[in-house]
Order: sequence, then structure tokens, then C-alpha cells
Amino acid sequence: MADGLLSAPLNEGLMMWFQKQVQLRPYHRGFHLVTTEITEKLPELKNYKTGLCHIFLPHTSASLTLNENADPNVRHDMEAFSNHYIPENEEYFLHVIEGSDDMPAHIKSSLFGADVMIPIADGWLVLAIWQGIWLGEHRDCGGSRHLIITLQGEGYT
Amino acid sequence: MADGLLSAPLNEGLMMWFQKQVQLRPYHRGFHLVTTEITEKLPELKNYKTGLCHIFLPHTSASLTLNENADPNVRHDMEAFSNHYIPENEEYFLHVIEGSDDMPAHIKSSLFGADVMIPIADGWLVLAIWQGIWLGEHRDCGGSRHLIITLQGEGYT
Amino acid sequence: MADGLLSAPLNEGLMMWFQKQVQLRPYHRGFHLVTTEITEKLPELKNYKTGLCHIFLPHTSASLTLNENADPNVRHDMEAFSNHYIPENEEYFLHVIEGSDDMPAHIKSSLFGADVMIPIADGWLVLAIWQGIWLGEHRDCGGSRHLIITLQGEGYT
Repeated sequence: MADGLLSAPLNEGLMMWFQKQVQLRPYHRGFHLVTTEITEKLPELKNYKTGLCHIFLPHTSASLTLNENADPNVRHDMEAFSNHYIPENEEYFLHVIEGSDDMPAHIKSSLFGADVMIPIADGWLVLAIWQGIWLGEHRDCGGSRHLIITLQGEGYT
Repeated sequence: MADGLLSAPLNEGLMMWFQKQVQLRPYHRGFHLVTTEITEKLPELKNYKTGLCHIFLPHTSASLTLNENADPNVRHDMEAFSNHYIPENEEYFLHVIEGSDDMPAHIKSSLFGADVMIPIADGWLVLAIWQGIWLGEHRDCGGSRHLIITLQGEGYT
Repeated sequence: MADGLLSAPLNEGLMMWFQKQVQLRPYHRGFHLVTTEITEKLPELKNYKTGLCHIFLPHTSASLTLNENADPNVRHDMEAFSNHYIPENEEYFLHVIEGSDDMPAHIKSSLFGADVMIPIADGWLVLAIWQGIWLGEHRDCGGSRHLIITLQGEGYT
């Protein structure tokens, strides 16, 4: 596909905002593909012709990022890399009272980021076919994480 | 709280954009909690029922990120980690004319990121109770940094 | 410039969405300044008085980030740092079937990020004078990358 309009906005349609909180099931430490779990909780996407979907994590020891959705080894290797280069028990760490996994989790949260913004076109998230939303659970026992999802854009009239 | 609407948009209200430049006070090298300094300069937040707040740093040697707002040791450890793994004076650095702190500052800016996007609900930033906005000042003497803040959303009618 | 309105929104103007796909020319592995290549493909920016420009990479082995646009050595050093701290052939990597450059490329994509959000004021991207948009091409032969660009904001009436 060459350059061109991806979704022709109406510019006369209904400008719509939508915001909801959703709860993910608990995940063990590591990176996890959560695209389907999120979109199943977002039937409202279908109302948007052209827009943006903002997914926000109100947590500081987990992360959201976009990456490959095919080979699970990619998620394994991301976690292995993270643990190797953002290790526990660095001798200069002062914040140790919440466990050795806590300070590395804060660092990973800021480096991988705590939100993603994804275009919406014709009622769908515009993700490449092999691209998915990952939750980075960086605590050993992080429990169930929440998301604040904000949809905005032009609706179908 | 289970899944559900966080803030019920009006979808008939005033669609509003607001953009301003604000100046932060100078900070020494390190990570600093700036949530209150920013929100005190943003009384306009109160006009938004549902929306998004984009905070953008027009600088390439500092960063903005979200992380824990409680224990100052978390900010200490983030800085210590950054300096350990993104060190000055790497033998392969060519960009050295602006001081040994400059190239690591550029790297930190891109890894931690130069903006944050935060949901707005009922006139408030939707941050977790222990979550705050951090400025990463990565130069030894970075001076006073500016922010470009863009608010958008549905206003109260 | 002190605190103040950067661009006075109209709040009575046309609310406009625009979304297009653009194709970048192929780049070799490394970081590349692409500000002009992108803005030349975005004459539609001129229609926006106040808004936001979202540039999204539907790829998982490349990245988009903002950094210095002046000294090319900064881009050299960013690449050298990346290759040093996110190396190929880590002994714990399991995802090796797509070549030794592939798994590090996935890690760099998530750490540097796959999108940028830039304010728009008076028809221009609000970037600092020495700030530009970088493409991080993290594959040896990544080919031509696409971008999904979404403009939103208040248009001139």
C-alpha cells in the first residue's frame, strides 16, 4: 500500500469520548500478550470510524508495550533480558523494604512505559498483523492489574 | 472496583482544546516529583469532564515519566541505576563537546521518554494514589525546563 | 517566554480528525532523522490551529523517538550504546530463527517506543529548534517502514 488515507474521517460526524476501567486477570512475572483480553472488553471500539485508543496502567511496577504477537520466545527473551540488565539487589539500591523484586519493577515500568496509544480505523485497532499489546508484570506477585482506557474520535452517524 | 465506566462522557458537551506552555523551576540532576508543580499551573483541568492531558518536554536531555510518588528512595535508585547502566565517557562516544554528562542525557531522554499522556475524569488527572509525574533532569546544570501541555476532551456545559 | 497560552484554541471551530498511512524510504540499521521526510508528507498539518499529531509505527523491530537534530554524532552514539547494552547472541535468547539482529531489534523497539505524540500549534509541530523525530531502524535489512499518522484538533474555520 502506498501513501494514502487510511480511514477517511467524516469531519461532520459525532465527536465521541468514552472512558472505562477494566480489570485484567492476574499474571505471573513476565511479559504477556493481552490484546484479545482487552479488545473483548472494548465492544465500544466498533462505534469509532477514526480515532485513537489510549490504554493506561495506573500502576508503577508493571508496564504496557507493543511487540510481536507470534513466537512466545520473544516474550521469554524480553523478560530474560530485563532481568539480566535490570537486576535485583544492586548494591546501591536503598528502596528494599518491599522486596528485592520491587525496585527493578519500578525501573522496568518507566523504561517500557505505562501506556500505549493505538490508532483506530473503521472500528478496529490499527495494529500490524504480528503486533500485539503486552502487559509487563514485573512483580513476583503483582495481582490483578487495572487499565484506564480512553477512546476518542469520530463516530458513525 | 469492577469493570465499568470511569467517567460517563456527555457526548453532547463542548469539545474543548487547551494548550499552554509552563516553566518548571530548575532542578539538579536526578529524578524529581513534579505532579503538584504541574497541576497548580493547570486550573483549566477542572473544566474537563472526560479527556486526556498530554505533557510534552521540548528538550532532548531531560525526560518525563510516571512512577511512585511515596518513597524518595525510589527516585534515588532510578538515578543510580541510570548512571550505572548509561554511564558517561563510554569509549565509543563521539559527541563529547558539550560535556561528559550530555550524551548520557540524550540516551536517558529517549529511553525514559519526553512526554506523558494521562487520562482526565471529572476534572482530575486519573493517577493512582501512589503514582506521580517525574521530571528526569539528566544534565548537571540543565536550568529551568519548559513543558507544552495540551488538554482535550469534553467540557462541562 | 513565561507561562502562558501557546496557541489560543477557538473552541468554536471545526473539530477535525485526519489519518493517513505514509511510507518512509528504506534506512540502514541505526538512528535516522526523519522530521522533514514526515512533514513533507503532511501538508494537512497546516489546517490545524491547536491539536496533536500521533505518529505510529506498525512494526516491532524499529522505533520512533525524539532527540537532537543537530550533531549526527548523537545518532551514532545512540546506536553504539544500543548495540553495546542490547547485544546480539545473548546466551539466554531462544528467539534466534530470524537472525541474530532480530531479538535485540524487538527489545530496542519496546525500550525506545513505537510512537511519538507531538503538539500542534498554528499549523506546525511544536518541536524545540534542535529537536527532531528519529526512526530507529534496528534490523540489518529492515526495508521500507510504514507510519500511521493521526492528526486531531481544532481546524481553522
